[in-house]
Amino acid sequence: MQNYTHVKGGVTASAGFAACGVEAGVRSAGRKDLALIVAEEPCPVAAVYTTNKIVAAPVIVSRKRTASGVAQAVVINSGNANACTGGEGLSNACTMTRLAATALGIEEDCTLVCSTGVIGVELPMEKVASGIEKAAAALSADGGHDAACAIMTTDTVEKESAVEFEIDGRKIVIGGMAKGSGMIEPDMATMLAFITTDAAIETSALDYALKQAVGISFNRLVVDGDRSTNDTVMAFASGKAGNDIVTIAHPSFAVFVDALKCVCIELGRKIVMDGEGATKFVTVRVTGALSDEDAGMAARAVARSPLVKTAFYGMDPNWGRIIAAVGYSGAEVEELKTVITIGSTPVFDCGTVADQAMLEAACNEMKSRVFDVTVNLNLGDSSDTVYTCDFSHEYVSINAEYTT
Amino acid sequence: MQNYTHVKGGVTASAGFAACGVEAGVRSAGRKDLALIVAEEPCPVAAVYTTNKIVAAPVIVSRKRTASGVAQAVVINSGNANACTGGEGLSNACTMTRLAATALGIEEDCTLVCSTGVIGVELPMEKVASGIEKAAAALSADGGHDAACAIMTTDTVEKESAVEFEIDGRKIVIGGMAKGSGMIEPDMATMLAFITTDAAIETSALDYALKQAVGISFNRLVVDGDRSTNDTVMAFASGKAGNDIVTIAHPSFAVFVDALKCVCIELGRKIVMDGEGATKFVTVRVTGALSDEDAGMAARAVARSPLVKTAFYGMDPNWGRIIAAVGYSGAEVEELKTVITIGSTPVFDCGTVADQAMLEAACNEMKSRVFDVTVNLNLGDSSDTVYTCDFSHEYVSINAEYTT
Repeated sequence: MQNYTHVKGGVTASAGFAACGVEAGVRSAGRKDLALIVAEEPCPVAAVYTTNKIVAAPVIVSRKRTASGVAQAVVINSGNANACTGGEGLSNACTMTRLAATALGIEEDCTLVCSTGVIGVELPMEKVASGIEKAAAALSADGGHDAACAIMTTDTVEKESAVEFEIDGRKIVIGGMAKGSGMIEPDMATMLAFITTDAAIETSALDYALKQAVGISFNRLVVDGDRSTNDTVMAFASGKAGNDIVTIAHPSFAVFVDALKCVCIELGRKIVMDGEGATKFVTVRVTGALSDEDAGMAARAVARSPLVKTAFYGMDPNWGRIIAAVGYSGAEVEELKTVITIGSTPVFDCGTVADQAMLEAACNEMKSRVFDVTVNLNLGDSSDTVYTCDFSHEYVSINAEYTT
Repeated sequence: MQNYTHVKGGVTASAGFAACGVEAGVRSAGRKDLALIVAEEPCPVAAVYTTNKIVAAPVIVSRKRTASGVAQAVVINSGNANACTGGEGLSNACTMTRLAATALGIEEDCTLVCSTGVIGVELPMEKVASGIEKAAAALSADGGHDAACAIMTTDTVEKESAVEFEIDGRKIVIGGMAKGSGMIEPDMATMLAFITTDAAIETSALDYALKQAVGISFNRLVVDGDRSTNDTVMAFASGKAGNDIVTIAHPSFAVFVDALKCVCIELGRKIVMDGEGATKFVTVRVTGALSDEDAGMAARAVARSPLVKTAFYGMDPNWGRIIAAVGYSGAEVEELKTVITIGSTPVFDCGTVADQAMLEAACNEMKSRVFDVTVNLNLGDSSDTVYTCDFSHEYVSINAEYTT
């Protein structure tokens, strides 16, 4: 049962937060590229970071600080990832938090930092410094949208989501924003997501809820199989809603988790929808797998296969490429038990191949911007779902010409 | 030390073999699509097959027969993979060997079969049957080139290689042909390769030599990360050279292995060079890894990354994408110890980023059709090499429009 309703806005939909997005000049002229999210007071924070062994300087700095479970603000720049930038990069990431803390009159230890953009170039710190001054002055209780715009890189649309629900008779909001359109793959990718809630919630409960939500949303996205050095998802909880503090044992904890999952899935979908050059959004479901691991491997192999993804682009119901991907995924699979369905049209049924009319029906389903592919292995009870997009000419153009 | 010299030709460069390629009408009109390779007598054979769990009917049939270590002929069709074709497909694969054996007057058990092309469509057996008749009549001691043409699918060029060397004072030839241009990835892919030699060699030695050669050649190719249902490499040894029978203990066994590796690497390079839409051939070397496994994982992650491959296409010395791929590969890596070199130009040196002049030099190296990328992890003594190509607009066009 769904206990939440969708509402407008993003990170400032929740009470107790201000945000903004300004032009610092790190990216090209006329583009917002520096954002702040600030809570009225230090508050519980949880975060999930990239699993890449090469991590950017801001990840090193923020990871250390979120370990305390308390934070008050995050400063974010786009246009430069501050990754592979050595000691100077690390120093610059710290400087960003110090400048933001000073401008905001808060503790440096409670100030986090994220960056996204080109790798291996030192940040233009003069521009960043004046940008932070400008941002501190621009903070507003309805600045969430500007912040969502300022964190974009190759993104073509800003990505926000918010839901409203009740705990203890109090109205609670969870809002979020994200960026990301390339290098997207399970276990996150060049993506940043920021969640705010006005719920009163213990850090440990927030942390547990965030890991649950990330597990079924951002960790289930496949754009091109690359994972970045900067991936970060952060959640702040202001407590302004005035509910009894939510713990893992709280009767409404599950309601909180469901609502958070909804926001994360919606942001995740928006990232895949905005996949570089994407023309299709495809949900790949694997059911009937022998184990959860098998289901995950099979779904990801299908979602990641360049041959499958170019077939999506060509609206070609090419189940041969799908079953071949399952076959090399490592999952147990038997040809004569496997059923592959595109939308509601079976194209391969336990060894029986769809006839021309069925293939045309499948092709028609693929003409939608959004469709599902289901692979039922008929071997067990495990299933998994991942979200992917197609591989287009535009993907190649974007990535052959853009230096990340 | 190289003990062999390159010679012209392919599978009929070795004494004791005849081959041919004819039009059976499985593919479009005017295209050769059925090949035979036939030894004068039953002879030692070794083979390596796909690791995909979904295997095509001809793989099932041939795998069973090569287990005996003896064979005399192989019949190969292009245009139809005979994969995911159920009981009828299996029966058709057997029928192909029976028809070929009858036409050639040899044992059915000594006759192997390979198919490549579209998945999930039953073979047009009338066409195949008359094609086999035609092929048996067309066999010739210089039919290797026609055979190489007949096994092509999306290949744009035929792929042959042959070398000559001496064992026991006798001239030995190893010749080969291959097809493959998409679905290429370590552990083979939609690729077929056929090797012949006139060396006298024990089956067990031939088998060991083939596994060694495949391990450093076909298993090191990355075009798009997909592996097919039909991959096969077969080697036949006619013994016509008259040398003492080569065993693993023979003093010249290493010479044989080196020559076989050379043929396999050359065929493998030709496959990558002909990668669907490829404009670049890139050798990715990882050195200084903590373990062989780490070296392999890192090299394959770089070679497989769509972001790295689109950067190759754009001639963009984007070391950031390369180090990010190493970072998520699972291999141990330390940013401040890593050196990335494009051609002979270092672009990232233990945390120091190349300046604009160096990046331009690297960009110039990438203008060649063929260049190397080396990642020295500086952590240990292990290394690995894989071969890859770029990801182009043409790759998307070919695979969005062609039903495999």
